Amino acid sequence: MSFLTNGDRKTANAGRRGLSRYFPILHWAKTYDREALTSDTVAAVIVTIMLIPQSLAYALLAGLPAEMGLYASILPLVAYAIFGTSRALAVGPVAVISLMTAAAVGNMALEGTAEYAIAAITLAFISGLILTVMGLFRLGFLANFLSHPVIAGFITASGLLIAASQIGTIMGISGGGHSLIELLRNLWANLAQINLITLAIGVVTTAFLFWVRKGLKPLLIKTGLRPRLADLLAKAGPVAAVAVTTLTVWAFDLASKGVAIVGTIPSGLPPLTLPGFSSEIWGQLFVSALLISIIGFVESVSVAQTLAAKKRQRIDPDQELVGLGTANIASALSGGYPVTGGFARSVVNYDAGAETPAAGAFTAVGILLAALFLTPLLHYLPKATLAATIIVAVLGLVDLSILKRSWTYSRIDFAAVATTIAITLGLGVEMGVSAGVILSLALFLYKTSRPHVAEVGLVPGTQHFRNILRHKVETDPSVVTLRIDESLYFANARFLEDYIYNRVACDEPIRHVVLMCSAVNEIDMSALESLEAINARLRDLGITLHLSEVKGPVMDRLKRSHFLDDLTGRVYLSQYDAMVALTAG
Amino acid sequence: MSFLTNGDRKTANAGRRGLSRYFPILHWAKTYDREALTSDTVAAVIVTIMLIPQSLAYALLAGLPAEMGLYASILPLVAYAIFGTSRALAVGPVAVISLMTAAAVGNMALEGTAEYAIAAITLAFISGLILTVMGLFRLGFLANFLSHPVIAGFITASGLLIAASQIGTIMGISGGGHSLIELLRNLWANLAQINLITLAIGVVTTAFLFWVRKGLKPLLIKTGLRPRLADLLAKAGPVAAVAVTTLTVWAFDLASKGVAIVGTIPSGLPPLTLPGFSSEIWGQLFVSALLISIIGFVESVSVAQTLAAKKRQRIDPDQELVGLGTANIASALSGGYPVTGGFARSVVNYDAGAETPAAGAFTAVGILLAALFLTPLLHYLPKATLAATIIVAVLGLVDLSILKRSWTYSRIDFAAVATTIAITLGLGVEMGVSAGVILSLALFLYKTSRPHVAEVGLVPGTQHFRNILRHKVETDPSVVTLRIDESLYFANARFLEDYIYNRVACDEPIRHVVLMCSAVNEIDMSALESLEAINARLRDLGITLHLSEVKGPVMDRLKRSHFLDDLTGRVYLSQYDAMVALTAG
Repeated sequence: MSFLTNGDRKTANAGRRGLSRYFPILHWAKTYDREALTSDTVAAVIVTIMLIPQSLAYALLAGLPAEMGLYASILPLVAYAIFGTSRALAVGPVAVISLMTAAAVGNMALEGTAEYAIAAITLAFISGLILTVMGLFRLGFLANFLSHPVIAGFITASGLLIAASQIGTIMGISGGGHSLIELLRNLWANLAQINLITLAIGVVTTAFLFWVRKGLKPLLIKTGLRPRLADLLAKAGPVAAVAVTTLTVWAFDLASKGVAIVGTIPSGLPPLTLPGFSSEIWGQLFVSALLISIIGFVESVSVAQTLAAKKRQRIDPDQELVGLGTANIASALSGGYPVTGGFARSVVNYDAGAETPAAGAFTAVGILLAALFLTPLLHYLPKATLAATIIVAVLGLVDLSILKRSWTYSRIDFAAVATTIAITLGLGVEMGVSAGVILSLALFLYKTSRPHVAEVGLVPGTQHFRNILRHKVETDPSVVTLRIDESLYFANARFLEDYIYNRVACDEPIRHVVLMCSAVNEIDMSALESLEAINARLRDLGITLHLSEVKGPVMDRLKRSHFLDDLTGRVYLSQYDAMVALTAG
Repeated sequence: MSFLTNGDRKTANAGRRGLSRYFPILHWAKTYDREALTSDTVAAVIVTIMLIPQSLAYALLAGLPAEMGLYASILPLVAYAIFGTSRALAVGPVAVISLMTAAAVGNMALEGTAEYAIAAITLAFISGLILTVMGLFRLGFLANFLSHPVIAGFITASGLLIAASQIGTIMGISGGGHSLIELLRNLWANLAQINLITLAIGVVTTAFLFWVRKGLKPLLIKTGLRPRLADLLAKAGPVAAVAVTTLTVWAFDLASKGVAIVGTIPSGLPPLTLPGFSSEIWGQLFVSALLISIIGFVESVSVAQTLAAKKRQRIDPDQELVGLGTANIASALSGGYPVTGGFARSVVNYDAGAETPAAGAFTAVGILLAALFLTPLLHYLPKATLAATIIVAVLGLVDLSILKRSWTYSRIDFAAVATTIAITLGLGVEMGVSAGVILSLALFLYKTSRPHVAEVGLVPGTQHFRNILRHKVETDPSVVTLRIDESLYFANARFLEDYIYNRVACDEPIRHVVLMCSAVNEIDMSALESLEAINARLRDLGITLHLSEVKGPVMDRLKRSHFLDDLTGRVYLSQYDAMVALTAG
């Protein structure tokens, strides 16, 4: 099979030959200097401060012990620093992947059990293998089959699901679920459990964090701070919330009054862990791991590309797969769970001046210090504070305007968005993203199976041909020129036959049919058989069939068949040539 | 959503309004006369003679009692005569569908049990419902997603499988299987059972039937018979083989020497039967029924279209679904199993002069008479004779030249054929056809995800633009014109971005990039976002982005977005206009 080589791949490889292609660290470490070290260290400190509460919160969202969030933020960052190609991407636990982890593992074990944690570790391991293998086989293009509207719809719906899942924690109510309906039903059923002190902490913290996001930065700037510093200070809001609420709970002994706290987080190095290897567990987790891998990769690579473009840098999507894959394998071996590149923290990393992936490694050191020395201080941290952190973070993901934008632009894109959102909310993340992908592929295939065919004529004074229904053009009653606006392949071959037979059926003076093939990028064997049938049928009717503007690759293939020998008419280089020749006689 | 209306549908409906659209019989019965009656009766007699041994043989192939083949050739033919639109199609049990029935039902019950027969009846009922519902919802286009190479490969492999499955019967060996490997292994394991008399009957009959096909007709013509009569006489060869071998077995009491015979076939009207209605059975049979429906429909409709075209008639594919659907429901209610339009017998029907679907109804009367009065005579019919009939019939289906033809024309079509054949032979019919469909769709999507992009220039002396690598053309160093040979959609949006960035990256004098959109039939929302990103990136590089030859439907959609407001360059009606404008300055 002969396809165009992916231009991107070529360029990316041209710069990185041999070992440094597979170990991008060899590429940037050579020129690493004191200046880069300073920038990276500053960025690492800021990202560490942001990542500590997030790691704990997302681990709880995944239904896992809080420390697993810290573990997932240490070795995976080092692995990515070695194998990843983005200079600003910050890897670690993220909201959507944590939710997907909860959905995948929740089917297999009860939250809080050892089996549950092992299943999450195994999920990270399988996902890491999938990503690495995809990278080595250069299958990064598969991610392109997730359309932008499907991703946008999925992220929005996931954000809503995550926010809904945290409402219970903020009210001190247990319960959960993998769809909006389950979540709301469990909330309603357990409403009597509501704890007013927890609710107060949760609501106040949420309000505070929203204010930090929206109101604090302008205020700080007004007081004379430089905008960048103000921005970074505002990013530390969650840390302040953690500190204040933890102290409050400790000082007033609110834990004894029913406020759920994080409790004892073991201090120390990440443990060495092994995934489960039973074929049963792998069978149950494989599809989930695949979905997590693809969603994680798509999210991560789009952040990485956006940030790279700002500095005119390039990333290599296939090597990114290896970077994320090894990060997940590292996570599985050190007590973590599935990770990927996070949007918000990568932007912070970039804004704080990260120059190289070393910033990620330095962040890992920061989190390691936190895991060693900080965890005792977090004993009294209320879960409601973490829930508030999550809610404020994920509401930034929710963008319902995609519904309106897609509705205006194309009903097909709208159908994909709306279905993805509805099924994600109604049936959960895995069904949602699967339905979105399948639907968008099915709609694309459906569209190509009923192509647009335009009857065209000559635009006066030019050699250009356009649709007779949209433009004032010249035509000849004995010649029908049909421009086929689609590649001809099995799904639309019969459609074309029907279209042509109907067009010529009741129009007596037609002597020539010209198929203008400027938009036909491919004629497969089914379509070739249809063309042969059309040629034979038209010959019986005394009509000659011609082709015009057949592209090089298509012509090459037609020459290898008998079609051109049997064709009653000719193949013209341009439609103008065809018109001149056929109207001359 | 706005798609082109299917022209075919319009025309077919224009001729048949109201009730006669759903009951095509009302259309042709109005003008039915003595002449048509004579033609139809002659055709019915000939098809009946051909159908009797085939019905019995295919029922045995499906693992069912022989009489179910007769039952499946009575009421279904009447139903099709009422609801079908083809004037020559002969409906009944066919080889491939019988094999698929055996594969579907064989998983659920043991051959020879009542459960097995009821499962086959239920399969016909579900398949009938699927076809009828698809017809009422006008989903006939779904069949277009089976590509010609996949169908050709599937039919060829099925023919080989069926022939292999009959070798055991010809040798008097029990056994079976759903893949070539299983079949050969069972044959080998039971080789000791071989019955030499059976083998002799089988081999002689097979040789005789081959000779009838190839040698008898020329001989008869040489003796002075008219070619058409000679042809029809040759078609009666299987009946002669049945008569002679039955008499031989009876006369020499070969059944007592181990020759397997058909045995007692109950005489009488078809019984009234009901399908099973347990959700478990329906769940197990649904996918099989769907595959049988689609394969049966595709085979049948292509025969019907071929025969209709010879007389300048049309068939309505959606109404054909209803015709075949009701035929299958009728089969399920009268002790039959899945049926469809058969290729060989439809050609015989057509050649014998069938004028209307009434010929099918008259054939049903013929088979009914056989079921009432002929069955006692068939008691001593050796199964080996029926196996020989099947082998000779199905080897006509085998056409391995499709492998060579597809290899020459396109590697992608070859991959689809070869995979379908290999998986059908290796893993059975259901896996084979599913793999073929999925693979051909996946390959199409893969191709469209890496589109051909050609850099074009002006063909001197014309206003026509062609690939600079294939033609001698004029270009301008400050203008790059890229013709994109594919619709832009989510799967190739990123590819285009990469392609353009790489093209402009190291080429200093470029000031304008023109995307020639003559082959772009669709720009979906993902691609729109990519175009926006390209526009912004090129603007940063000081390069203006233009479009040319944007089609009407695509332009309509772009006008509903902000893209045209942000576009740094212009949209030109023709590429020549763009070239003139951009090289003038």
